[in-house]
Amino acid sequence: MGKRQNKQNESCPVARSVDLVGDRWSLLLVRDAFDGTRRFSDFQRGLGVARSILADRLRSLVEADIFEVQPASDGTSYQEYVLTPKGEQLFPLVVALRQWGEQHLFDSGEAHSQLVETNSGKPLGLMQPTSTDGRVIAPGETNVRKVL
Amino acid sequence: MGKRQNKQNESCPVARSVDLVGDRWSLLLVRDAFDGTRRFSDFQRGLGVARSILADRLRSLVEADIFEVQPASDGTSYQEYVLTPKGEQLFPLVVALRQWGEQHLFDSGEAHSQLVETNSGKPLGLMQPTSTDGRVIAPGETNVRKVL
Repeated sequence: MGKRQNKQNESCPVARSVDLVGDRWSLLLVRDAFDGTRRFSDFQRGLGVARSILADRLRSLVEADIFEVQPASDGTSYQEYVLTPKGEQLFPLVVALRQWGEQHLFDSGEAHSQLVETNSGKPLGLMQPTSTDGRVIAPGETNVRKVL
Repeated sequence: MGKRQNKQNESCPVARSVDLVGDRWSLLLVRDAFDGTRRFSDFQRGLGVARSILADRLRSLVEADIFEVQPASDGTSYQEYVLTPKGEQLFPLVVALRQWGEQHLFDSGEAHSQLVETNSGKPLGLMQPTSTDGRVIAPGETNVRKVL
């Protein structure tokens, strides 16, 4: 999708990420993969997405080295879609979507799914941008150094 | 967009966030707002997006209380689109997109824009999900507690 980008967007890491995963289905597929979904039919049932759209998105995500295709873990002839290491590193993105949604998109007391640490059963901490020495950084304390 | 959601997605904070900001233009508009863009014509020029699409997305983002419309800061009759506190809290999401892009979508040595702490001039630290006591948590150490 590089041809849709102007020069400044070409050198912006946010724009490149958005080109690969900045759409509804890709984001939800990555979310479902973190939750353990691996098979086409399970992604399809979970999302209620048309098969043709699902096939297209999975193919793009495999091409982008976010998913890889593996033989079924149970020895059947199914294929499974598993996050690559590059795909696994989208975890902060999914957590950021989740935490913003938790903070702003539910009424108080309205039930929602929770991401918890398996061992402790506790929700994760609020993820925030920090300086290299760990201090929480607000947007107003930053600026973007453009590439000219 | 709730009607596109099945029951499990309705209670998922990731899905609700994706419904509001999980598309190319919304994500790039929020990015540009963090970088200081405030006016319709500046968003339009920066993104090269059609005016009708831009108007539509900005209206949706105002309805979702992510942007608010303000009179121009310089006293002219222009309107400005400014992030609300809810919109400002999308900062971790934009940082997550940026950091994943930096890690995976540029060749080594390929130039890209950088988000730096203004005071120190240094890039931010790598943002990662943590437990409530600050330990970095891998995806495999978590699970999603569904709402039934």
